Amino acid sequence: MCELLGMSANVPTDICFSFTGLIQRGGNTGPHRDGWGIVFYEGKGFRTFKDPNPSCDSKIAELVQSYPIKSCAVISHIRQANRGEVSLVNTHPFTRENWGRYWTYAHNGQLSDYENLPTGHFKPVGETDSEKAFCYLLHEIEKHYPDKPDDMTEVFRFIASRCDKLRELGVFNMLFSDGDYVMAYCTNNLHWITRRAPFGKASLIDEEVTVDFHEETTPNDVVTVIATQPLTNNETWHKMQPGEYCVFHLGEVITCNRAEIAAKSVEEANESGS
Amino acid sequence: MCELLGMSANVPTDICFSFTGLIQRGGNTGPHRDGWGIVFYEGKGFRTFKDPNPSCDSKIAELVQSYPIKSCAVISHIRQANRGEVSLVNTHPFTRENWGRYWTYAHNGQLSDYENLPTGHFKPVGETDSEKAFCYLLHEIEKHYPDKPDDMTEVFRFIASRCDKLRELGVFNMLFSDGDYVMAYCTNNLHWITRRAPFGKASLIDEEVTVDFHEETTPNDVVTVIATQPLTNNETWHKMQPGEYCVFHLGEVITCNRAEIAAKSVEEANESGS
Repeated sequence: MCELLGMSANVPTDICFSFTGLIQRGGNTGPHRDGWGIVFYEGKGFRTFKDPNPSCDSKIAELVQSYPIKSCAVISHIRQANRGEVSLVNTHPFTRENWGRYWTYAHNGQLSDYENLPTGHFKPVGETDSEKAFCYLLHEIEKHYPDKPDDMTEVFRFIASRCDKLRELGVFNMLFSDGDYVMAYCTNNLHWITRRAPFGKASLIDEEVTVDFHEETTPNDVVTVIATQPLTNNETWHKMQPGEYCVFHLGEVITCNRAEIAAKSVEEANESGS
Repeated sequence: MCELLGMSANVPTDICFSFTGLIQRGGNTGPHRDGWGIVFYEGKGFRTFKDPNPSCDSKIAELVQSYPIKSCAVISHIRQANRGEVSLVNTHPFTRENWGRYWTYAHNGQLSDYENLPTGHFKPVGETDSEKAFCYLLHEIEKHYPDKPDDMTEVFRFIASRCDKLRELGVFNMLFSDGDYVMAYCTNNLHWITRRAPFGKASLIDEEVTVDFHEETTPNDVVTVIATQPLTNNETWHKMQPGEYCVFHLGEVITCNRAEIAAKSVEEANESGS
């Protein structure tokens, strides 16, 4: 499997602290040795760093960890290959254009019977189920919304409905962004935390590093971090439920189906109890 | 204007030497302070490093210069902005997918009346004439060749015919690659050199660096470097003519229209003499 890391913030913020925790799992405290990548949006543009080598001893990961690149929307991934060989072409995140915007995506999980998913003109370049699913999602978005609608929460609700279909094919945990919004979709493993004033200290699980966010931030900063597994051991992370999605914008959750998921699970419990 | 740098090689080769020369021109020996970028292909995958900051004092350029990333196809660009603000979204090279392959492009020059170029579903994200022209070329390729034909030289001849149209709109020097082939198209400033055994020493113009390629290579290596202006002062570079294009594959020129261009210029000279 793999691990995902995402960030949404209301001011350009670096992700050095969280990334330091994540990359330890790329061959050191975790088995995700098969490459890593990170995309930082800056306005409508983005920059990507990728390496098919383990993140824990990658020169490029070292640069990303030590050089604070500030962004309001970040997606990162460390890979433990299941489908598709270990190579740059199969290294997440993937980025493609739709509606004159760059969309970025990373996937954790594994799908079966994904080969025939329609992708239109979004043709996969590598061999992974992940990239195929990305092309499928973009194709569905383009087909359903030839032009960008004003209400983006509607678009993300639509994307979530297509993620539900992908979840029927296996494990589908995903981060997705157009540079403004960061969407998280959960099958089994995804957590998030929103940090805001009063800021405190946080300690990484995977590395002996503690940061005092109070010293690094201003009182108005709002920063959400999303990760497969919590990255810190002294904070409370939200655990997402199967089929749950959340959309973050400038650090805040702007829409999610948490209540529906909870209602549905109560309903199912009642049914099974009857 | 900007400066271009490209490489085609028959064995994965690093471009540290040429890149060291180029980045000096990004604010030091040259005025191209408005960002830089480089794309390295590895198989069908690629990695990109980009920075809207001047290359001569970019931490990321420092990494690219000192960390030998080996590739058979590279495209790089340093920018002096004319159209479009200085920002990551307008920083070359640009990469997009067509036929399930990633195509990379960088442009030097300036176009007028480019706003109405048709681009189909390849929508520009930034504001540059360059990205618009890239989207136009991809759209034309996709329209003319819905699937990849066997004969790629035919495709490049077709691309050159569309570059001729772009040249009517202004200065259009370009590098273009699908990861296998590297194409160079010239309006006024583009030079190339093929290095092969017996290898000798080369000295950069922009930095006091000399390399002895004999020590860095094997006798079978063939490496072509393409640059806006020659990067070394003790080697003979081919100067390309207006309207000339060359396609390189594994370091060798596989097709170009040099002879046609030469014949045409003799014809024109005769006509004007009559």
